[in-house]
Amino acid sequence: MSTLPQSSTPAVDREAAAADYAALLDRSLSLNLTRGKPDPLQLDLAQALLSYDISDHRAADGTDCRNYGGLKGLPELREIFSGPLQVPADQLVAMDNSSLALMHDTIVHALLSVVPGGTQRWTEQGDIAFLCPVPGYDRHFALCERFGIEMIPVPMTAEGPDMDVVAELAGADPRIKGIWCVPKYSNPSGVTFSEATVRRLAEMETAAPDFRIFWDNAYAVHHLTEEEVEIPDLLAACADASHPDRAFVFGSTSKITLAGAGVAFFGSSPANVEWFLKHAAKRTIGPDKLNQLRHARVLGDTDGVREHMARHRDLLRPKFDLVESILERELGGTGLATWTRPQGGYFICLDVLDGHAQEVVRLAGEAGVALTPAGASHPYGRDPQDSTIRIAPSYPGLAELEEAITALTVCVRLACAEG
Amino acid sequence: MSTLPQSSTPAVDREAAAADYAALLDRSLSLNLTRGKPDPLQLDLAQALLSYDISDHRAADGTDCRNYGGLKGLPELREIFSGPLQVPADQLVAMDNSSLALMHDTIVHALLSVVPGGTQRWTEQGDIAFLCPVPGYDRHFALCERFGIEMIPVPMTAEGPDMDVVAELAGADPRIKGIWCVPKYSNPSGVTFSEATVRRLAEMETAAPDFRIFWDNAYAVHHLTEEEVEIPDLLAACADASHPDRAFVFGSTSKITLAGAGVAFFGSSPANVEWFLKHAAKRTIGPDKLNQLRHARVLGDTDGVREHMARHRDLLRPKFDLVESILERELGGTGLATWTRPQGGYFICLDVLDGHAQEVVRLAGEAGVALTPAGASHPYGRDPQDSTIRIAPSYPGLAELEEAITALTVCVRLACAEG
Repeated sequence: MSTLPQSSTPAVDREAAAADYAALLDRSLSLNLTRGKPDPLQLDLAQALLSYDISDHRAADGTDCRNYGGLKGLPELREIFSGPLQVPADQLVAMDNSSLALMHDTIVHALLSVVPGGTQRWTEQGDIAFLCPVPGYDRHFALCERFGIEMIPVPMTAEGPDMDVVAELAGADPRIKGIWCVPKYSNPSGVTFSEATVRRLAEMETAAPDFRIFWDNAYAVHHLTEEEVEIPDLLAACADASHPDRAFVFGSTSKITLAGAGVAFFGSSPANVEWFLKHAAKRTIGPDKLNQLRHARVLGDTDGVREHMARHRDLLRPKFDLVESILERELGGTGLATWTRPQGGYFICLDVLDGHAQEVVRLAGEAGVALTPAGASHPYGRDPQDSTIRIAPSYPGLAELEEAITALTVCVRLACAEG
Repeated sequence: MSTLPQSSTPAVDREAAAADYAALLDRSLSLNLTRGKPDPLQLDLAQALLSYDISDHRAADGTDCRNYGGLKGLPELREIFSGPLQVPADQLVAMDNSSLALMHDTIVHALLSVVPGGTQRWTEQGDIAFLCPVPGYDRHFALCERFGIEMIPVPMTAEGPDMDVVAELAGADPRIKGIWCVPKYSNPSGVTFSEATVRRLAEMETAAPDFRIFWDNAYAVHHLTEEEVEIPDLLAACADASHPDRAFVFGSTSKITLAGAGVAFFGSSPANVEWFLKHAAKRTIGPDKLNQLRHARVLGDTDGVREHMARHRDLLRPKFDLVESILERELGGTGLATWTRPQGGYFICLDVLDGHAQEVVRLAGEAGVALTPAGASHPYGRDPQDSTIRIAPSYPGLAELEEAITALTVCVRLACAEG
């Protein structure tokens, strides 16, 4: 991601940076920019869910949502999220509060049961691997590590993962069973996959017949601008390319309604959905349908989701603007760093001079500003350039955020001066 | 379980049975006794959860229950269920709505990560097996089948599984990694484990160092009489016997509050809980804490749970009484069947003459009375005696139940007459 000229060391006023940092230490800050966690003000937007009286507990089809059953989730809620997630409602499963859990379970099912089109369970195939566009999402990487799946980094471009690399690797190596993708407003780069990228992902030949795209569309409706960026429909593209079972789509309302009490979705081809439900049926009799019914009633329809997300944008946009303006003011033109200006999602990616990210994070930590560990956005926590820092501006209030980002820029200046 | 004299065929009036069955067919019944599903009237008891306004969304410790986090579950809810589940609150984890899901995940974790005290993951040890007291719970058996775990049946006695058999098998065979137990008001036999059984389970030597008791205490507070049967504290017994990590305890509020929208629990030794949470943390950032907070507020305390269960008893007891009175009236003294008179739980176990259960279920099905498939209470769906039929009286209303059980007795009479 970094486009910095690395050959010459920029001029940094080392003494000024050291003095600023000393002043920072004196202030005993305690600020946190680590996780993409909604601000309580954003959660307030979903207040109607908290006070909603669900005594009328029957779904549109008459289901008593209090009792057992309904593994696939409520049809009316699947209908609402069908459009945003680009999955036909009939191929969309609504479960409990965590899309990460659905990704976890999908890998477990694939490890222990042959996926459609495959011939062997993943556990029976010796070492297997996933392609991991970097920078990426640390919890995806943690799942691979937990299951002993090798991670092969692939560079991100402005259009998504470098598809020449992806196609070559996936085309040659049958051990490669999957690729992690956050296709819109990617975590943490903010990149949105282009049409060409999506088409190539759908069309490319893979050495493994049981290759899967893990399409974590976490920020499908999480726009920071009025543009509301769209991406191509991956499921349709895969079907058109005669690879109908290639994509597993994930999404959730965690950053739409309630981070801890939302609804997560799994969508895929009919064969994959049948496979998923068959194994999910051994695990549970069904999801919390009352929470799904509350969501369906309060959100109303897909337009209701759009309107709701506009209110999130109103809260988030000023935070992203603030971060960008401070970075520009403090680091613009210094040659010390570049940063992203995402049109959506939850993160700003700050790229400092190679070899300095860990030191920046360490300095910030000592000054009371907690940052995601440098390297977290790379497999095994190892950023070979040691340059990427993920900034999560959503949780703190504006005043805290200003303080934290200003402090961060001091750390960038000091680390690079010392380097 | 059957204590019928199998040597002589009882006298059955075949013509009368056939005439009764023909009359039954004419009535075109459509009744269902298959699953232990609460009656809507039971769910009405939890009405306060449906209308509860959770706008005050802070837990006792100040946690904003709307946001991410809190993997272990809300302390105040764990406190309430600590006593009923006999697990110290600090060793009790509260998750989402399904204890089956927690059993599933615990097996997945054990397959893929070494359990405390073990030396190898279960997947690395070739064929492994579980002891399955029979009759037992079909969803337990389905988990073993799904994961390719061999099931070894163990006969139930009036005090729980035959501990001579259990101790001999578990003591000799290191492939045996677990035993399924529903220790109180067992599904479907209604048996409650005796103190001697629990002590021997805790004390016995096992060939496998990574042996685990899967203690599904599904009916911990589900009494049908005022006696409120208690069982010994397995976790404490295991600790006393120097096998502190032997037990995994499971429970849920599915049949206390809402079958589809309750809270499930996992409890164990500190080492096991740490192991469980470490792996659960890869799967999810946390459970639905708002639902947990609703439960804690509405139930109040452990006494609140007790009082709530007394109201369930008032609804369930007449159904069990009705079933027993019809069985006694129609089959008493015929020698065709015996049945259980459980003091709690959700099932009555009807044992017909050996070799006739499948035929009874088939006849009932044709007459419009759906029963759990004969054999479902045995591993692989195979009841070698073909004698056990599980009756789930909770869901139908009294009038329907009377019709269904009367019809069932006609099928028993006809099947045995024809046999």
